[in-house]
Amino acid sequence: MGREARAMRIGFLGLGRMGTAIALNLLRAGHEVAVWNRSPDKADALAAAGAEVAATPRAAAEGREIVFSMLSDDAALHAVLRRADGLLAGLGEGALHVSLSTIGVATADHAVDLHVERGQHYISAPVFGRPDAAAAAQLTIVAAGPAADIDRAQPLLDAIGRRTFRVGTRPSAANLVKLSGNFLILAAIEAMAEAMALAEKSGVAPALLLEVLTDTHFNAPVYRNYGALLLEQRFRPAAFAAPLGLKDMKLAGAAAEAARVPMPFLALLREQLVETLVKEGEDVDWSAIGLTVARNAGLNR
Amino acid sequence: MGREARAMRIGFLGLGRMGTAIALNLLRAGHEVAVWNRSPDKADALAAAGAEVAATPRAAAEGREIVFSMLSDDAALHAVLRRADGLLAGLGEGALHVSLSTIGVATADHAVDLHVERGQHYISAPVFGRPDAAAAAQLTIVAAGPAADIDRAQPLLDAIGRRTFRVGTRPSAANLVKLSGNFLILAAIEAMAEAMALAEKSGVAPALLLEVLTDTHFNAPVYRNYGALLLEQRFRPAAFAAPLGLKDMKLAGAAAEAARVPMPFLALLREQLVETLVKEGEDVDWSAIGLTVARNAGLNR
Amino acid sequence: MGREARAMRIGFLGLGRMGTAIALNLLRAGHEVAVWNRSPDKADALAAAGAEVAATPRAAAEGREIVFSMLSDDAALHAVLRRADGLLAGLGEGALHVSLSTIGVATADHAVDLHVERGQHYISAPVFGRPDAAAAAQLTIVAAGPAADIDRAQPLLDAIGRRTFRVGTRPSAANLVKLSGNFLILAAIEAMAEAMALAEKSGVAPALLLEVLTDTHFNAPVYRNYGALLLEQRFRPAAFAAPLGLKDMKLAGAAAEAARVPMPFLALLREQLVETLVKEGEDVDWSAIGLTVARNAGLNR
Amino acid sequence: MGREARAMRIGFLGLGRMGTAIALNLLRAGHEVAVWNRSPDKADALAAAGAEVAATPRAAAEGREIVFSMLSDDAALHAVLRRADGLLAGLGEGALHVSLSTIGVATADHAVDLHVERGQHYISAPVFGRPDAAAAAQLTIVAAGPAADIDRAQPLLDAIGRRTFRVGTRPSAANLVKLSGNFLILAAIEAMAEAMALAEKSGVAPALLLEVLTDTHFNAPVYRNYGALLLEQRFRPAAFAAPLGLKDMKLAGAAAEAARVPMPFLALLREQLVETLVKEGEDVDWSAIGLTVARNAGLNR
Repeated sequence: MGREARAMRIGFLGLGRMGTAIALNLLRAGHEVAVWNRSPDKADALAAAGAEVAATPRAAAEGREIVFSMLSDDAALHAVLRRADGLLAGLGEGALHVSLSTIGVATADHAVDLHVERGQHYISAPVFGRPDAAAAAQLTIVAAGPAADIDRAQPLLDAIGRRTFRVGTRPSAANLVKLSGNFLILAAIEAMAEAMALAEKSGVAPALLLEVLTDTHFNAPVYRNYGALLLEQRFRPAAFAAPLGLKDMKLAGAAAEAARVPMPFLALLREQLVETLVKEGEDVDWSAIGLTVARNAGLNR
Repeated sequence: MGREARAMRIGFLGLGRMGTAIALNLLRAGHEVAVWNRSPDKADALAAAGAEVAATPRAAAEGREIVFSMLSDDAALHAVLRRADGLLAGLGEGALHVSLSTIGVATADHAVDLHVERGQHYISAPVFGRPDAAAAAQLTIVAAGPAADIDRAQPLLDAIGRRTFRVGTRPSAANLVKLSGNFLILAAIEAMAEAMALAEKSGVAPALLLEVLTDTHFNAPVYRNYGALLLEQRFRPAAFAAPLGLKDMKLAGAAAEAARVPMPFLALLREQLVETLVKEGEDVDWSAIGLTVARNAGLNR
Repeated sequence: MGREARAMRIGFLGLGRMGTAIALNLLRAGHEVAVWNRSPDKADALAAAGAEVAATPRAAAEGREIVFSMLSDDAALHAVLRRADGLLAGLGEGALHVSLSTIGVATADHAVDLHVERGQHYISAPVFGRPDAAAAAQLTIVAAGPAADIDRAQPLLDAIGRRTFRVGTRPSAANLVKLSGNFLILAAIEAMAEAMALAEKSGVAPALLLEVLTDTHFNAPVYRNYGALLLEQRFRPAAFAAPLGLKDMKLAGAAAEAARVPMPFLALLREQLVETLVKEGEDVDWSAIGLTVARNAGLNR
Repeated sequence: MGREARAMRIGFLGLGRMGTAIALNLLRAGHEVAVWNRSPDKADALAAAGAEVAATPRAAAEGREIVFSMLSDDAALHAVLRRADGLLAGLGEGALHVSLSTIGVATADHAVDLHVERGQHYISAPVFGRPDAAAAAQLTIVAAGPAADIDRAQPLLDAIGRRTFRVGTRPSAANLVKLSGNFLILAAIEAMAEAMALAEKSGVAPALLLEVLTDTHFNAPVYRNYGALLLEQRFRPAAFAAPLGLKDMKLAGAAAEAARVPMPFLALLREQLVETLVKEGEDVDWSAIGLTVARNAGLNR
């Protein structure tokens, strides 16, 4: 890290809350950034900050050394790659696509093939962190792909995150780590919610339980932050919507089945998310599985 | 907590690894300690350090202000309380029993009744921490019972732990918190083991996965320490034997059923522990549920 | 079984709906029956039919060759056996206790010891069948114990059931078979309820699904009868109350844990029953786990 | 039924064990049948019986009133439909495609669209029954689609099955019923296997348990037949291979997720199948989840 980053011409596809915050940091780091989003009005903030707004993914990619994408799911990435005016059509030979999205292992493996057969480069670099961490350039980045490609992207990754982990030369390895991380977060939420429901119905204040736990063994952000969400029952607006959580658990499940790994906790979490979507609607945060746990225990919520 | 502890005459029942370490710290703090253990040879270290060795629980309790017990399970506590030469027979009116054992909620509730009808006092004060933490007087103590009784014990608790949490006036509240904590630890182990098996079979080094996780969201002892155990496959000798883990999950399950709280993760953990005991034997650490996860994924262990 | 049953002097303890129906059939078969129930008013129907009403279990047992018991749970049997004026005190040396109740394996094993040390005989003979089958003497009986003891009871068992299966010489074997049967029934209900919820929410009439299934592979009473209950949503009044179902699943779970057998379906059924009790109350039929399945799928019930 | 079936010109795609047996019965009923299979050698038996062997799906469909397909999975159907020389290209306007395969709900819905936009007709008619039932024309057929289309196929369905159930006008309804049926079969196998492991480890002969159960409540083919398989441990050769079972559970799971129906038993069965595939290999019968249950209980298999 520490390396002086020369200004580069880059592209950025996907301007949701995460994408916008990341692209702004790339601009601030002195790079020339062409941005594209399916709904063009999302590009206004970037344009105001000096980005060029492209009409198509292809236009955002043409003549750029490196193009980032931060899209909502596998289908969105597929569409952006393959459409006639898409990324594959615009990306030059030798240029690099840095895929930040949380997508499936098989999709990442397939993306590699699509790029390689066109002489393009591809790495996966999904991130851990909420929009506020993205805005503060404090994301944790998990990168995988050929070392030379990650090296090439590293100055840019340094501009958007606090640390980059390299987890292998096959890009989908990074996606697997990201999906595993999301599984572990949701497992921690479910476990906490069960314990807090037990405490509350047994006459112990859940806040006290959480205080004891996070004082020692469980003194980590996942327990402190999601524990607070559960205590305060703050499930709307969603920071990470339950349907996205279900998507990730399904992607993790597909990877597990492909690798032939029984994952009983993961199986249970999928059911809990479906039940939560049934009962709470599609706009709730994924941590609302804790609401389902509480209601199923008869707690008045 | 700064208070000067006057020397007290106390009793201590149960000299396993935890009990021995705790009793030694009470001796070192300047108290007169009478100790008892079912197998008397376990008392040698304490005798050498200046403890009086009692022949029966009753003898260890007579004339003592406060008596601690640290026993393996509910049945052991029941036996120590009720036998003719037992604790209830020896404890004076107004004297206090501090129960450090990890026992069930119903057992603690019943213990309160047995003491109250004899004019004796009872609090539950189970601890978090392994034998090394006990030896270093760094236990985390979860206490519940009448405030005046905990106040009375506090100087002694300060001599054996780093911090005491007070979680309610009904003693069994502390047992519930302890059982909930053990449930959460085992849930974290299961989740990590599933994710690590997925990583390993997908070509990602589990050590890398763990490094990423514990760098941020999961930067807590439970993930660092048990993660290391899983990586190194150190399941013997048991620091906390699987049958004790199963006992605790059953006690948590009994509390959940009594309070009418569905806990699907807990239910699954019980089955995983039974399967682990079937396959690995009774002498394995409870974290060996991770070994079961790995073997069920076809990993060569 | 064709054998001519000579008239015997027998006792009968426990006059719930099942017990009453069974005892009436024993009377009708020409035997002299002394009956006892904790609430004496339940004995009126039997008295009217010619039974002698005893004031205590002991009185119902004294001077009787064979004494039946049909009690609600392990605690009730324990109380009836051990009280000062109880069954063990009244049963003569060489007399036989036929235990029809659905109790746990460990309780049955313990009951054997209590009888043997007094020179009394004990067999377990739990029954399959609802009160209407009991009234029609069409119960299916599962008996276990020494062959000579079952032989001795056989003429009486023939008077109350359609068929007796002998499943071993250790009495608790019969209890294990009964508990296994109840587990399988509840598993079938859960599976049907899940499939019917899937059908209903996918636009397929659950009645049609059930018709297809029971036409072939699933053409058995458990699917026809419970399928009809689920379709008609007849969960009250309870034919077999959910708390009794939970008791049986717990007894099966205790047997499974003692034998070290992981049973993941059983674990899940316990949680479903707890959730059902939370949501529907304690007076609902055990098949109302199907109501929980439907509600958790968002079906309007 | 009973209706006289006039001879028709029909096509048949897919000559696995099931397809071959069914196509032979259509020939025997006097119809002119053109057959096609991906591996052409599988067509020999049909050719010997008088079928015309077509080189492509298109050739088997051209000029035929009704074309049946019996393919291994959704991908195979998709390929057969869409290839340049495929079924959609060959099927005439107004002609009917009867899809016998066990495929997913979404695939069937999509197939309808593909046919309708070409003026072709499509119904789903998956079957229950093993190859011997197919050979004996004793299949149970579950049909869905427009009534006129099913009417048109009915004489042919009568030639291959014992009974046709009509479960709706949307073809995928039949696929949902078939998937639900397979889910229920596997749930019954799992439940039986758990109970039999409990019996065996508790000293009760599993054969006796099975005899008791199938005498009454569980007197249905699914328990008798699969119970015998479990007792005899006949898991090879596979009558229905575990990977196909996993495929069906995944299709059921996709339908459940789309309809937002939590199905905890189904989730658990998927994990059991994955574990079974890991341990026993891909060539084992799906009922070998019972082998996994037994091994996890420590039974020597």
